[in-house]
Order: sequence, then C-alpha cells, then structure tokens
Amino acid sequence: MKPKIVECVPNISEGRNENTVKECVNAVASVPGVTVLNYTSDPDHNRSVITFIGSPDGVIEAAVRLCKTASELIDLRTHSGEHPRMGAVDVIPFIPVKNATEEEVIDVSKRAAEQIWNRASIPVYLYEKSASAPHRENLADVRRGEFEGLSEKTKDPLWQPDFGSGFHESAGVSIVGARDFLIAYNLNLSTDNVDIAKKIAKAVRNSSGGLGCVKALGIMLKEKNCAQVSVNVTDFNITPLYRVNELVKAEAKRWGVHITSTELIGLAPMKALIDSAEYYLQIEDFDFDTQVLENHLL
Amino acid sequence: MKPKIVECVPNISEGRNENTVKECVNAVASVPGVTVLNYTSDPDHNRSVITFIGSPDGVIEAAVRLCKTASELIDLRTHSGEHPRMGAVDVIPFIPVKNATEEEVIDVSKRAAEQIWNRASIPVYLYEKSASAPHRENLADVRRGEFEGLSEKTKDPLWQPDFGSGFHESAGVSIVGARDFLIAYNLNLSTDNVDIAKKIAKAVRNSSGGLGCVKALGIMLKEKNCAQVSVNVTDFNITPLYRVNELVKAEAKRWGVHITSTELIGLAPMKALIDSAEYYLQIEDFDFDTQVLENHLL
Repeated sequence: MKPKIVECVPNISEGRNENTVKECVNAVASVPGVTVLNYTSDPDHNRSVITFIGSPDGVIEAAVRLCKTASELIDLRTHSGEHPRMGAVDVIPFIPVKNATEEEVIDVSKRAAEQIWNRASIPVYLYEKSASAPHRENLADVRRGEFEGLSEKTKDPLWQPDFGSGFHESAGVSIVGARDFLIAYNLNLSTDNVDIAKKIAKAVRNSSGGLGCVKALGIMLKEKNCAQVSVNVTDFNITPLYRVNELVKAEAKRWGVHITSTELIGLAPMKALIDSAEYYLQIEDFDFDTQVLENHLL
Repeated sequence: MKPKIVECVPNISEGRNENTVKECVNAVASVPGVTVLNYTSDPDHNRSVITFIGSPDGVIEAAVRLCKTASELIDLRTHSGEHPRMGAVDVIPFIPVKNATEEEVIDVSKRAAEQIWNRASIPVYLYEKSASAPHRENLADVRRGEFEGLSEKTKDPLWQPDFGSGFHESAGVSIVGARDFLIAYNLNLSTDNVDIAKKIAKAVRNSSGGLGCVKALGIMLKEKNCAQVSVNVTDFNITPLYRVNELVKAEAKRWGVHITSTELIGLAPMKALIDSAEYYLQIEDFDFDTQVLENHLL
C-alpha cells in the first residue's frame, strides 16, 4: 500500500513574538515522521501559518501537540491583530496530498478534533467538508463574533462546539476540518488608501458576485504602508491565479493604481503555478500530465 | 543516498518505418528501471526522438542496447531525410534530472560511449560538456559532412573518434555527450511573412547579440499558414521562458504583428514554467524549493 500523505496548515494567533512561534513549530516538528515544510508570520495580522505534512496519525498527533503548546503561550484576552480569530490555534485545515481520499482526511480531522478537546481542553468546531451542519461549512460564519463573542456564541444552541463545550478561557476554540488545497495570494497596491483595496476585494470575491472560488478582503499593510487585496483561492482548478491577478489589475486601473508586488503564502501545488505560465506564455495544447518532467518522477 | 535520475534523448535515423522505431523503443524499455517517457517520429526528417529516464547504469545499458538494435535495422547507406545525420543512432544526449551532478552525467556519457564501441562496434564522438576538445563541443560542427563524409572525416587527425576508430559501415558513428535540459518553445505569429519571423529570430538569438541561451530560426509553418519563431532555450535558469516571450512580443510589435499561440515541444522541468508564473503573477520573495509542494514529495 502506498503511504498516505496529509497536509495540515494551522493558523496560530501570534505573528510578533518569534520565540512563541518557534516553540509552536517545535511542538509540531517533535512528532516522528512529520515534516514542517514552512512557516510564515505576519506582524500586522499577528498571525502565523505553519505548513506540515505527514502520515494521518502523524499529523493528528502534531496538531494536538501544537494546540497544547499554543494554549500555554498565547492568551487571546490580550491579543489584537488585523486578522479575525477565535482561537490560539485558530483554524486547522487538513488537506489530502498523496494517496489519501477526501473521506480519509475528513476522518483525520474528526480524530484530531476529538483529541484536541480530550488532551488540550480546547473545544472544537468542525468546518468545511467535516462540518456537522450546512451553516458551519463556511469558515467566516463559524468565526463570526471572534474570540470576544465566544461566551455569547457558545450559549446559542445553533453554535454548540462539535467537541467539548463552552470555550477555553485564554485559547478560545479551534476550528478543524478537511478541505481542498487553498492558495493564499495577496496583491499589494500602489496606494495607502485601504478603501480602494476593499472595493477591489468586493469586485473579485465570490460572495459579492466576483470569481467562483475567491475569498477576498481589503486590508492595510502598515509595515509596507500600502493597501492589500488579500485573496484565498479555494479551488485553483476552477479559478486560476492568473485570472485573479488580471481581474485585480483591471479593477485597480479604474482607481488609477496598480499591483506593485504579490505574495504567495505557504505552499502551492506546481499545477496552480504552471496553469498561469501556460496562460501567459500562450502555450497551445499543453498536456500537464505528460509534458511536465516531474509528473514522471513522482 | 537519494537515487540519481538521468534523462537520455537519443535521435535515431528512422522516422518512416514504424516497426523499426518500435523495436528500437523496445530495446530501451527492456532495461529494468528505465522508463520510456515519450517518442516521436518525423517522416520528412526520417528521424525519431526517444525520451527516457533511469539510473546512471540503467540509461547507459539502454543506450547501448539501442545502438545494437538500431545498427541491425537501420542502414545509412540507403537512408535519406531532411535532417542532417551521421549515425543510425545519431546523437545521444544525457541530461541530469535529479540528484545527479553535471560531472556525474559527463561520466555517464563517457561510460556509455565506451560500451557503444566495445559492444556495438560503433565509434563515438563526444560532444557538448563531454567534448575532448573545444572544436568538438558544437553538435553541428561534429556532424558536418554527415554519414557520407565519414570516410574522409575519420582520416583527419583533428576528427579521430573518441572511442574506436573509423566508422561502422552501415551505422556510421554516434555522437554522445552531457548537456543541460533544452527547451523547445515555438512562437506563432499573426502573419504569413516569414521574413518577419527571421528578423525576430535574429533579434532574440544569442549568436547575433540577443538573449544568452537562445537559439532561434524564423520558419514558415505551411500547415497553419503562419510564420514561426522556432526557439531552443539551452539554459532556462539563465534565459527564462517569459523573457523570450516578452522580447519576441516587443520585436513583433515593431512589425505590427503579435504572438497568436506558442508550442512547448516535449518535456519541460516544472521550474522552467514556474519561473514564468512567478514573473507574471509578480510574486515577491518566492522560494521555489520550499513553496512548491511537489519539491517535498520528490
């Protein structure tokens, strides 16, 4: 049987204190057979993203250890940052990478959720493909009210956690689920006017009539003194990255601004990038499966 | 130790007789651990290209078996075709693909050359990075005079084969060496004026002052009734594909034409395409080694 590989991309609510972030990364890396691929911190968002892969059992153990460590080091009662958050370890998505089906990864997410409650005493909402009800599928809906609203929210019969009850007084709740590969692609604008970024975000995101698999927010990047359209692409096979780039470019033009640079946060499968090369290089009849050398080596 | 993978792309002087081509492909595929990725035949050129990968020892064995089989089936004394050729198996390039250094692949090419002489009685010229003298680096120089000129050429002290002497009466000589990955990228223009394609080719190719690692020709594509700039990029790490596309675009503009489509022939390593995505998507601080998921799975 081929080894199953699952990816996990937890977001922790700390993007300023390097030591805390490192201790969290170390907790993940302490599990044998789990490989931390990458982590990035954003001081404005006050948030870090850790990317790791491993066997189903390995990624579950790493997620639980991360929750235990983060709940000892991060206190949401004194936390502020641009990005909405509900937990010390906020959202914990599991993604099938190799030889693992969607069903298997949903199972992984539920086993992780159970152990996060049992061993770290942090209640868990299941979301996305693991959601226990349709109103819990969308991350933004689950997270609405943020940490500060939890005492209210967890009393609502519609919003009882899937594992545990109430919330951890300093670490809140975690949001756990299986999902497709998500690409975080942020586009920086040649303006410090955040209203322009918000207008562009509204134009391109799915919820207000934009592109199919795009979630977008307009935010201010103080560090760079520029406005940013922060984009998540939830299925790059439906909405390729070049289309996001070109549409943001077109919308920006209307306000007399342009894209100065972009950021790709964490990892992307090669296909998400090669699709854009194919578009811009105008390659006709390109066969991804046979013409990309690495597809013969994997 | 990580397994080393070497690619080999031999050109055989048969592009019309399907059975002969298949027997040659079977000779390559008969070596355990060697994988034939692809083969294509061109009847006008009367030439076929076989692409395969394997371990250093595997690709050497496959190249030798190919030479033995081809020398039994292909007789250059009765061969004609558009493409210049000197051997039944004409040129045998070896390319480092994974965990193999340039030096190791030069060694592979020399071991293959030695065995082609010892076991198939075909003399060999070494070329490109394996060349024994500067005047033997360029394939066109080595092949000058073709099969018909071999009896003269192999008497010239400057052109003694590197392995063996004289030439095989029906299979000629083979030309063996290590080279970088070569990308064939053809750009079709919105004109049937081949002079424009020739002017653009001259502007972008290295030999007339264009881009570092570009060879280019302007040709007429009768099939599509359009002019084409036919490009080989000999090192995409020095000359990325987007730069070729953008420069051809800029030169075309001056003649009032544009690129209608492009073709990528055969295989390309993912990095050759992802470099272009990075450029067009304007991704800052992109780390190919860590941010592309497949780099962690290979």
